[in-house]
Amino acid sequence: MLETFLITLEALGVLAFALSGIIEAARKQFDLVGVVMVGAIAAFGGGTLRDVLLDRRPFFWVEQEFWVWALIGVGLVLPFFFRANHIALTEKAMLIPDAFGLGIFAAGGTHLALVSGMSPMISVLMGVITAVAGGVLRDVLVNEVPRAFHDHQPYAAIAFAGGWVVVLLGYLQTPEYVDVLIAAVLMVAVRLLSVKFKWELFRWRYL
Amino acid sequence: MLETFLITLEALGVLAFALSGIIEAARKQFDLVGVVMVGAIAAFGGGTLRDVLLDRRPFFWVEQEFWVWALIGVGLVLPFFFRANHIALTEKAMLIPDAFGLGIFAAGGTHLALVSGMSPMISVLMGVITAVAGGVLRDVLVNEVPRAFHDHQPYAAIAFAGGWVVVLLGYLQTPEYVDVLIAAVLMVAVRLLSVKFKWELFRWRYL
Amino acid sequence: MLETFLITLEALGVLAFALSGIIEAARKQFDLVGVVMVGAIAAFGGGTLRDVLLDRRPFFWVEQEFWVWALIGVGLVLPFFFRANHIALTEKAMLIPDAFGLGIFAAGGTHLALVSGMSPMISVLMGVITAVAGGVLRDVLVNEVPRAFHDHQPYAAIAFAGGWVVVLLGYLQTPEYVDVLIAAVLMVAVRLLSVKFKWELFRWRYL
Repeated sequence: MLETFLITLEALGVLAFALSGIIEAARKQFDLVGVVMVGAIAAFGGGTLRDVLLDRRPFFWVEQEFWVWALIGVGLVLPFFFRANHIALTEKAMLIPDAFGLGIFAAGGTHLALVSGMSPMISVLMGVITAVAGGVLRDVLVNEVPRAFHDHQPYAAIAFAGGWVVVLLGYLQTPEYVDVLIAAVLMVAVRLLSVKFKWELFRWRYL
Repeated sequence: MLETFLITLEALGVLAFALSGIIEAARKQFDLVGVVMVGAIAAFGGGTLRDVLLDRRPFFWVEQEFWVWALIGVGLVLPFFFRANHIALTEKAMLIPDAFGLGIFAAGGTHLALVSGMSPMISVLMGVITAVAGGVLRDVLVNEVPRAFHDHQPYAAIAFAGGWVVVLLGYLQTPEYVDVLIAAVLMVAVRLLSVKFKWELFRWRYL
Repeated sequence: MLETFLITLEALGVLAFALSGIIEAARKQFDLVGVVMVGAIAAFGGGTLRDVLLDRRPFFWVEQEFWVWALIGVGLVLPFFFRANHIALTEKAMLIPDAFGLGIFAAGGTHLALVSGMSPMISVLMGVITAVAGGVLRDVLVNEVPRAFHDHQPYAAIAFAGGWVVVLLGYLQTPEYVDVLIAAVLMVAVRLLSVKFKWELFRWRYL
């Protein structure tokens, strides 16, 4: 049951990040194949980098091939859906699925690294890498400065703090999936709130 | 014999992509070392990423060290050759070797993944990754939006379709190298034609 | 003792590259988290890529977790230190730690690959990759053309030549750490001199 839960969660994260990549590539007038590929890289980039670093094989998308098909389908259909429904592809539209991907991947990545026997600090970092790498790759591919490093809003900081929530909950008697779920929900909520209310990191400015 | 064939083919793909990287870096006024390195990354990037994903070691360029020497030689000599012969480094000059690299790497990568026991869909994706990653890295390094995602011409789409040709031919009694060769020739031809006649993907435009 | 020496050296290289990444990100007005992350990627990027290519696990930063904590601390404190002391974050300020990182990582990476049983040429390349990859990633992340490919000053060329120094010294009876140290010092010195006196690579210009 734990495994089913984790796979479902990872699939949700994949779809959320795919959506963010698709919106971003569509905003930049990429062609249909480019939209699908940026979506795929945003979706699978973080988890694949995590698995390379942890030396885990097969990859999520190799084992769960269905999601590759799903992604191609979504990537091909979605732009037409946006267009037909006159959905404006604003930056904000992209930030909502991105927030879900952030929370899910950071919680899942931290948990996975802990299970692989990594220390708490390294596990939290793996969670951050899982959550941030896909979005960074997405931004690099559309030739922008990675938003996660530049927008002065908490993003990687949320993944970092949320990873420690997973670690700390791990010391309680709660079932693992509850730990992951609580941390993920917390991170998504904080990120959405920080987008809505424009919370900023302590603003350090180079003079 | 199959192995010799595949190594020769991969070497041709390496040289083709190296050429594309060298032309691109020279166009951007990179220095001599930069030209060699962008050439090397365009040439070996796709195959190396494929081997990391498939967990294959040693890499092609570790086993076939000769090609590293060849690449350095070509990278150092070619810019002078271009200059002496007044060869214009237009974007089009770059697209011809790029087309050869595309067909060869997509066919070879798909075949390699099939042999490694991957499913057809994953094998086709590995072919696409092998073919596209080197060029994407090349474009990111010269600080451009990856052409493969943006030019509205079939590129990754050709690698995808051509990969399925390798898979389908695999069900026939033909020798493996014939399958790979047919698919590679097909892809190179379609790509060259699509460049020449400016074939475009179905043009989806975000309004 | 050799091991302690190598770990200390790698740690120095990590800190030097971290400093270069922190300065670069601060110059680009990245936020605090971005500064820490660009610093971390500049610091650990080259060594991690080398370890992925050589299939070495665990990574340096997984084994020597202390350095991750150190890096986060340095990344958070340094910008305030710069500001308080009115240290100008010029490009030149970045080039000094970068030179140290270059020499240390090129020498260490070459040595490590030789010990892993790689041929001299491949080992030298691994040294170049270790030394150059972190800085290239840093420059890509701040959305600039990688300086190592573009500035017409010897950089990767120094790593390449210095790697051969490690290889050649390996044929003498000198202890390994002496070989690594001599090569590293040589490379740092040549790089600093070439920055100071604006030495240039043979200037090839595409006309």
